[in-house]
Formats: sequence, C-alpha cells, structure tokens
Amino acid sequence: MAAPLRIGLAGLGTVGIGVVQIVQKHAAMLTARSGREVVITAVSARDRTKNRDADLSGFAWETDPVALARRDDVDLFIEVMGGHEGPARDATEAALAAGKDVVTANKALLAHHGHALALAAEAAGRVIRFEAAVAGGIPVIKTLTEGLAGNEMRRVMGVMNGTCNYILTRMEDAGLPYAQVFEEARQLGYLEADPNLDVGGIDAAHKLALLASIAFGTQVSFDAVEMEGIGAISIDDIRHAADMDYRIKLLGVARMTGRGLEQRMTPCLVPVGSPLGQLSGGTNMVVLEGDSVGQIVLRGAGAGMGPTASAVMGDVVDIARGLRIPTFGVPATALTVPVAAAVSAACPWYLRMTLLDKPGALAKIATALGEAGISIDRMRQYGHSDGQAPVLIVTHKATRTDIDDALARFAKAGVLVGEPVALRIEEV
Amino acid sequence: MAAPLRIGLAGLGTVGIGVVQIVQKHAAMLTARSGREVVITAVSARDRTKNRDADLSGFAWETDPVALARRDDVDLFIEVMGGHEGPARDATEAALAAGKDVVTANKALLAHHGHALALAAEAAGRVIRFEAAVAGGIPVIKTLTEGLAGNEMRRVMGVMNGTCNYILTRMEDAGLPYAQVFEEARQLGYLEADPNLDVGGIDAAHKLALLASIAFGTQVSFDAVEMEGIGAISIDDIRHAADMDYRIKLLGVARMTGRGLEQRMTPCLVPVGSPLGQLSGGTNMVVLEGDSVGQIVLRGAGAGMGPTASAVMGDVVDIARGLRIPTFGVPATALTVPVAAAVSAACPWYLRMTLLDKPGALAKIATALGEAGISIDRMRQYGHSDGQAPVLIVTHKATRTDIDDALARFAKAGVLVGEPVALRIEEV
Repeated sequence: MAAPLRIGLAGLGTVGIGVVQIVQKHAAMLTARSGREVVITAVSARDRTKNRDADLSGFAWETDPVALARRDDVDLFIEVMGGHEGPARDATEAALAAGKDVVTANKALLAHHGHALALAAEAAGRVIRFEAAVAGGIPVIKTLTEGLAGNEMRRVMGVMNGTCNYILTRMEDAGLPYAQVFEEARQLGYLEADPNLDVGGIDAAHKLALLASIAFGTQVSFDAVEMEGIGAISIDDIRHAADMDYRIKLLGVARMTGRGLEQRMTPCLVPVGSPLGQLSGGTNMVVLEGDSVGQIVLRGAGAGMGPTASAVMGDVVDIARGLRIPTFGVPATALTVPVAAAVSAACPWYLRMTLLDKPGALAKIATALGEAGISIDRMRQYGHSDGQAPVLIVTHKATRTDIDDALARFAKAGVLVGEPVALRIEEV
Repeated sequence: MAAPLRIGLAGLGTVGIGVVQIVQKHAAMLTARSGREVVITAVSARDRTKNRDADLSGFAWETDPVALARRDDVDLFIEVMGGHEGPARDATEAALAAGKDVVTANKALLAHHGHALALAAEAAGRVIRFEAAVAGGIPVIKTLTEGLAGNEMRRVMGVMNGTCNYILTRMEDAGLPYAQVFEEARQLGYLEADPNLDVGGIDAAHKLALLASIAFGTQVSFDAVEMEGIGAISIDDIRHAADMDYRIKLLGVARMTGRGLEQRMTPCLVPVGSPLGQLSGGTNMVVLEGDSVGQIVLRGAGAGMGPTASAVMGDVVDIARGLRIPTFGVPATALTVPVAAAVSAACPWYLRMTLLDKPGALAKIATALGEAGISIDRMRQYGHSDGQAPVLIVTHKATRTDIDDALARFAKAGVLVGEPVALRIEEV
C-alpha cells in the first residue's frame, strides 16, 4: 500500500471540523477507497482555545496557515478559511510553492485569482481541487470536468445560493415582503456577514465564473459576470410570475455565443414545472447542457457542514487515488482569454412598473417599447389606486441592450412611479 | 505530451457510432482535456458491409472482437456490443488478459460477471470503467465512486429504465391501459427485443446491483435483487395513487440494513411533489443518500446515442488522464459477500383488490390484515358493479413478509376476484 496521504488543514470552522469528523470516523473506509491511509497531521486556526466539536489532540498546531502549508509532514493542504486575500491566498500560494497539492472550498479566492493559482500549480506540478467551492455537496466540478469531458458544453445554469432561494421561496409561501424575509434570514444566521455576498448575487457569481471556465475552456472571468441581486423583487413580482406559471429564481447562466462568453447571475423567471422551477428552500441545483449528453440536472444541499465536508473529502480521495487533472480541466496555459459577449442573447422579458394615472401613460410605454424594437407578447394593466396603476408586460425576445434602451425611454417619458423591474424569462 | 491513447472499439451500433462521432468531431478538445491524443485504431462489428453514419475508413477492421481486444495497437478496449455471455464476455476477458483497460456499457455483463471481471482486471493491473452501463448520460458511477467517496452511503434509489417510466407516464397522461401503451412503445422501438428486460425490471435491476456494489462495498449480487415488473399496474392504480398525491414509478432501492443488504426493483408509490414523483417520460433519475452529503439527485437522459456515448467518453478521458481506480471503488478482494436482507425494511403499502359482492367480504380482508399484524391507515371501498367491488387500502408500515402473509390469507378467504396488487410507498 502507498504511503499515507498527510493533510494539513487550515481553518477549523464548520467545514474544517466536518472534515476532521469524516477523517476520524471513516478512517477504514477512506483507506479502502483510497488505497492508502488518509491522515491529518497538522491544523491551523486563529484561536486555539476555542471549544470545537472534534478531538484535535493528535494534530500538530500552527497559528500561521503559511507555516502549516510549508510543513514537511504535509502532502496536501486543505484551505477552508475563506477570504480571497490575506491568509487564504498567502497560504495557498505557499502550499503550491512548497510542492503541496491543494484542496479548497474558497470560491472567492478562485474567482479572483484562479488563473494565477492554476498557473502556479501547474508550474509546480501540483493540483488544485475545489469541489466544495461550488454548490456545496453536489459534485458539479467533477461532473463537468470529468463526467462530461466528451461534450462541448452548450450552457451551464444554476441556482447556487441557498439563502436567496430560501428568501424567494419563503416570500412566495408566506406572502411576506422581501425586507421582512431578509430580516428573518439574518436572524436565522443564513446570511453572510456582508449580506450583499448573498442577496447581491456575488457569492453565486463567483461559482458561476468557475463553472464557465471549465465549461468553455476560458480563464476565470468573474469581473465580466452581469450581476443583479434579488433586492428589487417584490411579492407582486412573485405573484405575477406564478399567475403565468413561472417562478423567480436567482439564476446563473453561462454560455458561449457567437458574440463571446455570456455570464450572468440575475433573477430570472423559469417555468414552474421545470426542475429549476420546482426547487424550493435552500437547496441548490445545477443544469449542465452538452452537445452529446443533452441536459443533466444535479440537485443537493449547497451549504452546511456535512455537504461541504463531503465535497472536500471527495477531492481528498481523488488526490489520494492519484487523480491529477488541471485546475480548470485543461492546462492553464491552454485556457483562452474570454471575450465577454457585449450583448447577451435575446430572450423574453418580464417588465413590471407603476404608471402615474395620467391620460396616455400606457401609450407612452408601448411607444417606447416599439421604438426600442421590442414587441409585446402580453400586457396587463391593473386597477388604479392612489393615482397609480401597476402594469405588467411580457415581451417577445429582446436583448439586454434593447431592454436598457426601453427603460431609458420609459424614464424620459415621465410617467413612471419608482423604478421598473426587468427580469429575463429563461428557457430551461 | 504522453503517447496517444489507442482505442479498439467493439460494436458499431448506435452507441459505437456515437463514440466514433465524438472522437472524430472533438479530437482537439479531447486532446486538450486528456493531455494526449485519443484515437481509434481498430473496430469490430458483425457486418462490415452495413451502411453506418460515420467514416470508418481510417480504422483497422476485425471481424472477431477477441482478436480486436488482443491487438498490439490497442491500449483501451471499448465494449458496446451487449449480451452477458458470448463475444462480449469473451472479448472483455481477452482484453484484460492482454493487458488492456476496458470501458463498457454492458450492464448485464457486469451484473452477472462483474466480480470475476474486477478480480481479473486487478490481477492484470488494468481498470474497467462502466459509466454508460447505468443511467445513460448521467455520471452516476463517477458521482458515487468518486464524488461521494467521503460518505458512508445510506440509500441509493433510481428510476433507471426510461421505457418503463415512459409507459407509466403515458398511461397517466393519456388515460390508456397498460397493454395499449406497451404496444405503442413496442411500435416506437422503445422496447428491447426481449421486452421483459424492460417491463420486467431486469435491465433496471442490473443497474441497481452495480450501484449497490459501489455504495456498500459488496460483491455484485444481481440474483438477490427483489424484482417485479410493471405489467400488473392498471390505470386504476395510477389514478388511485394520484388521488393520494402519489405517482407510481419502477423504482430501484438499495440499502444496507441491520439485517443485510436490501435490493429491490419494483413499482413503488412516491410523493408527486418529490423529484422522483416529478420525473416524467423517458428521463432517468438517481437519488444518492450519504451520511455527510445528505441527498443528491441526478437527472438526465438514460439512453440514446449521444448520452450513452457521452458516458463512454467520460470514462475514456478518465483513463487517458491516468485515473485508475478499482472497478467498484475498492479492490475487488476487499468487497464483502453481501448477506441479502431476509426481510426488507418495513414501509407503508398500497393494496388494491377486487372483492366479490358478498356479505362480510371486506371484514374478511380487514381481519386477514389484522392477523398478519398489519394495521390500516386508510381503506376505501368503491361502488359495486357486476357483483364486484374495488377496494383500496393503505397500510401503516409493514414488511414484505407481513404483506405476503396477508396476501396468502386474502386468497384463503375466498372473496377476491383476480390477483391483488401490492405496492410499496417509498419515503423519498
């Protein structure tokens, strides 16, 4: 049997302790599956005195994760600290430079520095695996990089922020406004310290950028993701969507078009009867479309101790078994620089706005749409109250540019109360 | 760059031609992803003169797949002929003996001879991969063997025969009886030459036995799968189930219990709102439950040229990249001989029967259930017609043994018309 795989574990929060628990509880199973022992030799975390739900007495302790990454008795460095700068980045770079393989759950780190880290790993002859960084326990990185390796990918989609999906589902189920459900989620501890990472779509956009890199063989390009949070979604939007047999999801979509790489993380309407439309609560779902395989849908817990630790351990066993593939599926030097699609593909749009109760207000909106080259599929004006009239429009296919043009014309027309809401209707 | 990976392809039916098409169309992509060229050097099929939808002129031709398996210019033998004896078995054994890796789509071969082949592969230092053998394009073997390698598996479930799911869905949607939809499916070419492979549950049971081996570290034990086809399901059953918010699926379930390994492929009722309940048409779904990851659901096309060839090519790229893991996830010598659970776990049951219109008939049935130790959750008797009364019963949790006891008592009571239908209600 090969020598044991010796792990240095940086970060003893929920995920780190989950990893310790699996390694300790399932030692024999991991040995059988890996063909070698999997052992943790050293750990690091900020506070050594904190009470943690695992026996750490057998591990060497490093206060500095960089020192941990460089230890001679570490073959594999696991980074579950988080943060895309500072200790996480420094220690990951140090680990690669010291000839260690890396397993990380850090989507922000890879979204910002993935290409540089992939180059560093390959220069050092080491690998970086990051299953836990995307969609928690769902083995989507593996499925895309390995299982579907025979496919030219057409489109990658995902609901990959459980907190946003929880908020949208709860708004619909309980008929509560966004602000109230947001506050509930905060009190339940579902939100990041900076909630904009969740509800602003940033966290999910990190994940999408990683999937897009693998799917299309391009360098990670997080800055090019069109991003829009769920803060503007009202209970009315959710109800209008439901009336038309749609649900609203914070949906990531990436595809390679003739005009370049399209990446977006925005609230979209999806059919109620589709797998994405049926997804409720904090669960994640990823939809992968390839030229041979058609559509593959993966569903599971997107966060939490067990699922995230499961993903980390899948990577650990891969490395223990000797699987060595490039970070994003092809050598980093072969990844192309993506041209961001200046115009995303045309799709139907859902538009909701409130009009002043003035003669000709609706006509001005219809005219503005016509001038922007957008034709109307359905339009509905609701009864006036307080001198205001809610209006709902579903358009035929239009680009983001067309819609932005129309929204600018709406603003000039001087008949709007507040900001209109414009959401894509995604064919799934 | 490493030397090219040279493929010998045995079988030029739908799947074989799909593989040829991917290798030819995506040569550059496969090279980038594999780190080496992937080439087909030789092929074999029964009829060389047949017109096929691919250019085969660049490949050597062998009439005998065993000769193909032994060629010096073949590193990897792909078996997509089918059949669990004869040429498929002979050629697979010959390939391993000649030091070739094997990729196969042949569920029957592995369900019957998987353990012997795994032993042979490991003795020869070769690997067998078989993603295409289970659930078509869905990378479920990879997910279970690799992605969830950190989990002790709790339960594996799946709808893995698209034809059966098509028949059941079509019966429900069109309100047509089984015999008529069966005939439709036959005319559409959805059925195997021996339709019992589909509607008898055999094909799906082959797949379940392979998943169970990986999930529980046991030698493939196809003979121990409790198997029941869909032929006894009537449109009435489908309607009664729908009235109670259930759908009927040919569902495979494997789990390790305190009493041993439970494997069954039988029609079950599942909640309409669950992912399994929402699955319609020919699509496949596999549900994997692990102690850390919770529940992972995978959905996709379970058959067809593109999806099956995609699965084959995923295995090919794995082997080209150097991934070498034991056939069933742990060395074949470490697989345990499973003890088949003599009694499968208790669950609620759906019972449908037709009673003679005699005084006391229903009381006799209720008494028989009580004597078998089964308590009734719901019972409904429908109006009599022609001196017969349909009766529907949902039981509290009972074992298969209890139910068989009750069914024997029903028969003795002499009040039944025809055979009763007994289906598990699976918690999903």
